[in-house]
Amino acid sequence: MKHSTYKLSIAYDGTNYSGWQVQPNAPTIQEVIESSLEKLIGTRTKVIASGRTDAGVHAKGQVAHFRTDTPLDTKQLFYKLNCILPQDIAITSLTEADDTFHARFSAKRKAYHYHIHTSTTHSPFEHPYRTHIRFPLDSERMKEAARYFVGTHDFTSFSNENHAGACKKNPIRTIYSLEIIEIEGGISVQVIGNGFLYKMVRNIVGTLLRVGSGKLDASEIPGIFAAKDRTKAPMAASPKGLHLISVDYTS
Amino acid sequence: MKHSTYKLSIAYDGTNYSGWQVQPNAPTIQEVIESSLEKLIGTRTKVIASGRTDAGVHAKGQVAHFRTDTPLDTKQLFYKLNCILPQDIAITSLTEADDTFHARFSAKRKAYHYHIHTSTTHSPFEHPYRTHIRFPLDSERMKEAARYFVGTHDFTSFSNENHAGACKKNPIRTIYSLEIIEIEGGISVQVIGNGFLYKMVRNIVGTLLRVGSGKLDASEIPGIFAAKDRTKAPMAASPKGLHLISVDYTS
Repeated sequence: MKHSTYKLSIAYDGTNYSGWQVQPNAPTIQEVIESSLEKLIGTRTKVIASGRTDAGVHAKGQVAHFRTDTPLDTKQLFYKLNCILPQDIAITSLTEADDTFHARFSAKRKAYHYHIHTSTTHSPFEHPYRTHIRFPLDSERMKEAARYFVGTHDFTSFSNENHAGACKKNPIRTIYSLEIIEIEGGISVQVIGNGFLYKMVRNIVGTLLRVGSGKLDASEIPGIFAAKDRTKAPMAASPKGLHLISVDYTS
Repeated sequence: MKHSTYKLSIAYDGTNYSGWQVQPNAPTIQEVIESSLEKLIGTRTKVIASGRTDAGVHAKGQVAHFRTDTPLDTKQLFYKLNCILPQDIAITSLTEADDTFHARFSAKRKAYHYHIHTSTTHSPFEHPYRTHIRFPLDSERMKEAARYFVGTHDFTSFSNENHAGACKKNPIRTIYSLEIIEIEGGISVQVIGNGFLYKMVRNIVGTLLRVGSGKLDASEIPGIFAAKDRTKAPMAASPKGLHLISVDYTS
């Protein structure tokens, strides 16, 4: 039977979820979307995202796909899905895609923003979306450090991917841009790359925070890369400041 | 013993609270602030706000005061209070005030914003802060209606204050400005007045929404005012779109 492929763009506030991927006894974005879809099309259908997001991470532009042989009216399904989804998850577009489309394998570029709140006073409206650092950060030092990440590198030291016992994954990735932007009450780290290893953005931001607070010098970063050892880089920044902004599929 | 008066500016996300005022068996902003203050100064002290906010209503610039004979270092207390307050309540300033200062009785003007989200798709990041209206609103009709509220009027029809059995309160209030502003994905109603009766802003917005959706004509508003009867005006808009922006004490 002929099946069709559908592409979804999804926005979510990750605060109340244990990340994207279905897991037993924990609410996840994938579980909520798959069970909502099942209510509307009658069969359980796997929804594959461009990548998992961790517990507490947000998305403005996550992309996913699913394949089904049930004939679908995309305009109606888009409307009905949004009616039954909870307020913190929204489908922002739903279109039929080419059968070769795969949300993960077809992705060419991803953009993430990481928001940091640096006022001494916390912000009641921003706290789920920004990490609060109660000491001043030197954005010039962070900009200097950011330059070391741009380009094609072995990101083993900045990834939690290849831990003992895991399948070895190619650790080479390309970062096209890594900007340190001053925003009201804080700093936003904005990164675009061809792909990111597990916890790679949060590990990079963790290192930028150490540099910004004066506890690490930017010139030490090449040595951390060369060590190819996760334990040589600072700890990851907390998930709640991280936002998956967009996934790009054009070459 | 000589007591001193302190003025607080407070921001809060009202989502998880049953409003400002202390009540049994429900979390309130006042209860959280008074109990935090008690931990730091050792005695339970009443914190009086410029006005109560209802369950789910937010504040960017609520103002309150308290009086105490405990000697206080305002800079230290400001820092320590923010350390122990939950993430959704922040003190944005704490200063010593004149002993005649009263957060409610000294207030000269208040500004409220009411945010409405009008996209067909809900917004995962805005949903606690905007009311979602799933049908289009005609902002020109709303602007026309807004003009009828500006000025000094008897707001009995737009207040839940003087219900049967309540103490009769003067229903005359002055609205200095009422603006309908188009914002990304919706409309913001921005009002400044010398004071507001109970649920008055939400009742006015409820009426503006009826006009904006074409179910009421702006020209019917003078008749609703003249009736001095709450049941003649449309129902109140939901609390979550309402934000107390500022309280002004200068003449």
